[in-house]
Amino acid sequence: MNRSNNIITLITDFGASDIFVGVMKGGILNINPEAKIIDITHEIEPQDVIGGAFLLGSSYRYFPRGTVHLSVIDPGVGSERRAITVETEDYYFVTPDNGSLSHVLAEDAVRKAIELSNPDYFLPEISDTFHGRDIFAPVAAHISKGVPLENLGEIVTDLVKLPILTPQTSDDRIIAHVIYIDRFGNLITNISKSVFGKARRERDFVISIKDKQINQIKRAYSEVPTGELLGIFSSFGNLEIAVNGGNAAKNLGVEKGAPVEISLR
Amino acid sequence: MNRSNNIITLITDFGASDIFVGVMKGGILNINPEAKIIDITHEIEPQDVIGGAFLLGSSYRYFPRGTVHLSVIDPGVGSERRAITVETEDYYFVTPDNGSLSHVLAEDAVRKAIELSNPDYFLPEISDTFHGRDIFAPVAAHISKGVPLENLGEIVTDLVKLPILTPQTSDDRIIAHVIYIDRFGNLITNISKSVFGKARRERDFVISIKDKQINQIKRAYSEVPTGELLGIFSSFGNLEIAVNGGNAAKNLGVEKGAPVEISLR
Amino acid sequence: MNRSNNIITLITDFGASDIFVGVMKGGILNINPEAKIIDITHEIEPQDVIGGAFLLGSSYRYFPRGTVHLSVIDPGVGSERRAITVETEDYYFVTPDNGSLSHVLAEDAVRKAIELSNPDYFLPEISDTFHGRDIFAPVAAHISKGVPLENLGEIVTDLVKLPILTPQTSDDRIIAHVIYIDRFGNLITNISKSVFGKARRERDFVISIKDKQINQIKRAYSEVPTGELLGIFSSFGNLEIAVNGGNAAKNLGVEKGAPVEISLR
Repeated sequence: MNRSNNIITLITDFGASDIFVGVMKGGILNINPEAKIIDITHEIEPQDVIGGAFLLGSSYRYFPRGTVHLSVIDPGVGSERRAITVETEDYYFVTPDNGSLSHVLAEDAVRKAIELSNPDYFLPEISDTFHGRDIFAPVAAHISKGVPLENLGEIVTDLVKLPILTPQTSDDRIIAHVIYIDRFGNLITNISKSVFGKARRERDFVISIKDKQINQIKRAYSEVPTGELLGIFSSFGNLEIAVNGGNAAKNLGVEKGAPVEISLR
Repeated sequence: MNRSNNIITLITDFGASDIFVGVMKGGILNINPEAKIIDITHEIEPQDVIGGAFLLGSSYRYFPRGTVHLSVIDPGVGSERRAITVETEDYYFVTPDNGSLSHVLAEDAVRKAIELSNPDYFLPEISDTFHGRDIFAPVAAHISKGVPLENLGEIVTDLVKLPILTPQTSDDRIIAHVIYIDRFGNLITNISKSVFGKARRERDFVISIKDKQINQIKRAYSEVPTGELLGIFSSFGNLEIAVNGGNAAKNLGVEKGAPVEISLR
Repeated sequence: MNRSNNIITLITDFGASDIFVGVMKGGILNINPEAKIIDITHEIEPQDVIGGAFLLGSSYRYFPRGTVHLSVIDPGVGSERRAITVETEDYYFVTPDNGSLSHVLAEDAVRKAIELSNPDYFLPEISDTFHGRDIFAPVAAHISKGVPLENLGEIVTDLVKLPILTPQTSDDRIIAHVIYIDRFGNLITNISKSVFGKARRERDFVISIKDKQINQIKRAYSEVPTGELLGIFSSFGNLEIAVNGGNAAKNLGVEKGAPVEISLR
């Protein structure tokens, strides 16, 4: 890949009320005044590495080639967990090596993975609790300026990957889960369009969640009356259970992790 | 209008915890790397088209001439509702045609309105649930690069406008409503300074809200003691009911839509 | 200091759901199209001047030299409180003169302080309730373009400073307070590393908060088992009480202002 496009994205569990995000941006601009910093989200649940991995995996491809994706959900800050940068065909990633790239690595091959061990690219003083400011943001800024990854540390090959919950498919059944609930209360399952299509083979189906059944997949929320439940393929590429004009999570009383079953016949 | 200034604003009901906003920004930068993207707000209540229309109408004029305002509150995504772009004397707007421009169109004349029907300016694949990413953000980015609106589709003349709640004025009375409550609990009414001035004609007045009366309009919150109620002309240009150092909505137990009456004598 | 680097930071109590922040940014871009605007936070508690002063004081140094820091927590808007700009060795500040710079001024010397009295640098119309939009943002934009501070008004020397809560140290005891609680529920005290080191003089210590005791300071949250309490030096530079993988504020039932005592022997 050529040098970066100066775009750095941020995904963290730092929220909006603290100064953590702002201070990271200041540090980036200190190193690369041309950086264009884009927030993906800072509202990952505190320390929810796998939740962050899912949202990073769902968003990174929508950015220009060469973007540096900076992900800091870092419950192990200060411990022996490694700090890494990873180059794929189209992107750079900078993150603690704690599984934050699990969804990315399930889709893209690693071209280069480096442990961040060269303090020349860190802030002069490293705190015990905020490597986002002291290590990750400065390194992302240097990468966005074109610093060769080799300068940052040694190659590593044993990146941490967390297990990703995948649906179980048998001839007449898909057993799956709600893996994400968005702001609108839409229930995002882990059933991708292609998994569904291959398992279904044009047969009728019934989607069961809690005590409700759905037997059609719509193309728009408004294809059912207001307040009614529907299935639809979400912008994440997965089957979504929604309520037209309403909040499916609240209506059904469903939380992340809830089971979803599809019977086929 | 000459070509855009590369500024694109965003107003949506997408919130901060999802990736929707970040992904739209990535898509914009893919098309126009020079874009300067400014968030107006993403905290419109889910699917509250008219609430979003009010806040867009209250903010668009504060941006430089040529700004592209991108508004996506889109409960009808995937249905037959049109996607449009509108040019006024000073701005471009990109939005579903669902009333999101009601307040803008009450103030500014339309120079050109186009239905977005040319898929050359969309993402190659259009999802069923997220036209913000697949249609609106790419089109806004193309407009910000100077693409002539005519390239985007056919002219339309029958834009959707939702009714705007206006006060009823008689000789001795203004009957109005709280149309917005801001973060501080200030109650923004739909009584503009000019409507108030014309109706009042220098007479004494009593503003009634719930069981409280106010008979003066102040120039600063601190003109009344801490904890006391006052009337003031808000930065929205409308009469505001506030509590110095406090939260009028909580203190009075008032919600959006509450009646406000002014008697004149 | 040479002219600015075009970076303007924002710290306010305006929250995310209103248009206040977006409108300020539009106004800045009207005056300085090259401005790079960075949010520090907008989630200061409404009207909490001293809380904002602490977070500004904890973040301003992480930005490039020449940055213009714009702080608007302004309960006195419209009253006689002054609007000011202050130049220190490395930064510019624009803010109401209400104590918002208390922490900055405790650390940095003032090179120049000016009362903003020249309306040429304001919006043409000044509202009663939103000087962030009408005065502070335009002035910050002008400063970021290199306008000499002298043009903005007259020099002042009697800036408002609010008392900063400092720990009381005796030979065998530090009596201090929780002055900030971050998103993770970490309890930030006002005991700096250097105050602690000087008072301690290598002796054993016991930190008491509520009915709990801690007698070691760790270098990583993960040095204690999940769910256990620890002391650590925070990224703010102060002693922090935390729970590994948990929320100390919730676990202990502690709020901002709670006492913390360290006994030394």
